[in-house]
Parts: sequence; structure tokens; C-alpha cells
Amino acid sequence: MTPWTLYLAPGTCAQAVHIALLDADAPHRLQLLDFAKTEQRSPAYLAVNPRGRVPALVTGQGTLTEVPALLLFVAQSFPAAKLAPLDDPFRLAQLQSFNNYLCSTVHVAHAHRRRGARWVDDEAAIAAMQRKVPANMSDCFSHIEADWLRGPWVFGEDYSIADPYLFTVAEWLEADGVDVSRFPKVLAHRARMQARESVQRAKAAVAG
Amino acid sequence: MTPWTLYLAPGTCAQAVHIALLDADAPHRLQLLDFAKTEQRSPAYLAVNPRGRVPALVTGQGTLTEVPALLLFVAQSFPAAKLAPLDDPFRLAQLQSFNNYLCSTVHVAHAHRRRGARWVDDEAAIAAMQRKVPANMSDCFSHIEADWLRGPWVFGEDYSIADPYLFTVAEWLEADGVDVSRFPKVLAHRARMQARESVQRAKAAVAG
Repeated sequence: MTPWTLYLAPGTCAQAVHIALLDADAPHRLQLLDFAKTEQRSPAYLAVNPRGRVPALVTGQGTLTEVPALLLFVAQSFPAAKLAPLDDPFRLAQLQSFNNYLCSTVHVAHAHRRRGARWVDDEAAIAAMQRKVPANMSDCFSHIEADWLRGPWVFGEDYSIADPYLFTVAEWLEADGVDVSRFPKVLAHRARMQARESVQRAKAAVAG
Repeated sequence: MTPWTLYLAPGTCAQAVHIALLDADAPHRLQLLDFAKTEQRSPAYLAVNPRGRVPALVTGQGTLTEVPALLLFVAQSFPAAKLAPLDDPFRLAQLQSFNNYLCSTVHVAHAHRRRGARWVDDEAAIAAMQRKVPANMSDCFSHIEADWLRGPWVFGEDYSIADPYLFTVAEWLEADGVDVSRFPKVLAHRARMQARESVQRAKAAVAG
């Protein structure tokens, strides 16, 4: 199989896919984009992903985008890694419910801190968005702590593609102004993830 | 099998799941929520979905949320309906990429028109958000028209769970202030969907 190429930038949600590729032992190359130079808007990258976002995964069959889709694709392509309950539609749907909540609600709540210009054009409104980010992210993580995170992993004893995604989003909490001491299960999950070899290798691979 | 119960409100993204249930001939009951009475925030509904959003699908195994997850669950639970390329991980990932784009970018762009209070507390900032909705939705649908929608269905000859979801989101365009004449493929897709029995039955079931 031709190695896949993952386009990513450090500190973004693309890290979740990167960790999953390492968990799956999937042959891959990395292509780092420098957001400080807005490389995600360069003509070269827009030819890869016309929406100008990361991650994008280039495969021999074509290019894929959106974290929950990429995570499921990794799990299905490398079933021996057992990264999702592929033979149980209900349990898989629970996992996808969680990952979709992260992408459509939690990531979006976070994005209002630094990407407000996506939704408004004036500075006062951008500042108004930033003021509400701590409360919104706290609200999201209250749900995650109470309703989703079973421990040790998101769905109990079985590590899955929900774990690198939660870990990646949870790394944003302090910068988003959240009092993380309210979320002991999330903190324990984060520490558990940091101890994994795949996470350490993912961090090392993008370190400057 | 115990019939599933779909919680929905007319005009919301939950319609996509409702149409898919009808496409799949899945036994189900409907539970309509009245957003004008903020029933989605009632204690009774928060016991179903603590996040207070629709859709929610209550099954004999538990409750599921988030449109892309529910759509895949319907497709996997009723494979004879052929609503997704279940045996082809790459094609399924393309479909999930599209549905995740709808939930995390397009639906979010739309939500800034009437749900701005999710992200800001002051009226001026809410108005600033509303001003940008037409441009953002137009930008999203430019990508859909150019990069995704193959015709006659989103992924070509095979109708799939991408179609009721695109249809549902595309119904919001006029109210979002978009000049729909720029998107002839989307309009043709919408008309094609309106001719389907499942869509007509979904509309009739929630009509007041």
C-alpha cells in the first residue's frame, strides 16, 4: 500500500488522526503546515483541500477530510488494531455520537477564541465571543465528565478512536480559560494518554 | 425489534434522520418537540439528551445523538436499504467526510443566524454574526456545488445518507439570505429529493 500522507499543524485537531495512525501502525508520511505563515491558505494546500483546513489525508484512492471520518477510516483500514467496535453498529454509533459531539459542538466552542473572524467581521464581536469561551468549554466538558467518559478510556476498558480525539481537545482547556480541576476524570484520561507511546511519538514528530 | 423513537422538531437537522428512517423502512415512532415552548430544555427531554438538542434516537440498547452518527447507524442497521457503501471503507469515509462537513461547518455557519446566544451574550455581537451568515453559507455551498455534489445524488448514481442531510441543510438557504440561483446543482438535488416518497411522508408526519 502506498503510504498515506497526513497534512497537519501542531496543536490542531489533526493530532487525533496522527495518534490514531501511530496506534494502528499505519504507514504514513507527515506534511506539516505552518499556520503562522497561513500555509493552509496557500494554492498548493488548497489543491489538496479546497476548504483550507487540517487535517487532510491523501490516500492512493483520493483525499479525505474531517476528523471523525478520518478516525473511522483508520480504524476500518487497520482492523487488527481494534480501534473501534466495527462489528457492533450500536456501540460504533455511540462512539461516532461522541466524536461528532467533539467536532460539531466542542471544537466549535473552542474555535470562537481564536477563529472568531470566521463568523463576524468586527473586533467588538470577536471580543464578545472570546469572553464566552471559558463558560462554553466548561459546559461541554461538564457533559463529557458526567455523561461520556467512563474510564479508563472514553468507552471503558477498550481504547478506541474516541481517546486520541478527546485527548487532543482536552489539551486546549487551559488556554481556553477553563478551570480544569473541575474535571478530574478528564485530567486522569489526559495523563493516561500522555503515557502512551503513540502520543509521545506524535508529539516528537512535530516538535520544532 | 422494539421500534426506535426519534425526537425531532420541524425544520431542524433531525429531518435528515427521519427521512433516512423512512428510506430504510425502519420501524419507528416520532416524538415532536416544540422549540417555541423550549421543550428541548424541559427536564423530561434533558433526561433523554442532557445536551438539550435534537435529534435523539432512543433504541432498545440506549440513546444516540448527532446526525452523522444516527445516519450511519440507520444505514448499518438496515443494510438491505443500501444507504451507504458499507463494504468499502474509502467510499464510506468520503461519505462521512461530507456529512461531517455539514455538521461541523455548514450547520454551524447557519446556527449563527438564530442561535448566536450560544456563543455571545450581547445583542450587538449577535447582530454582527447574523450579518455574516449569508456570505458564510454561500461559501459553504460554493464548495458543495463545486467539489462534492456529483449528481443526480451527492455521490453519483447511488442514493445515500448524504442526500437527506444535504437536502435538509439546503432547505435553510433562502432564510439564511443566500442567492440560491448560484447553486443550480443544489437546487436540482433539492427538487429531486422533494419528489421522493420518503421526503413527502417525512413532511406530512410533522405537518401541524
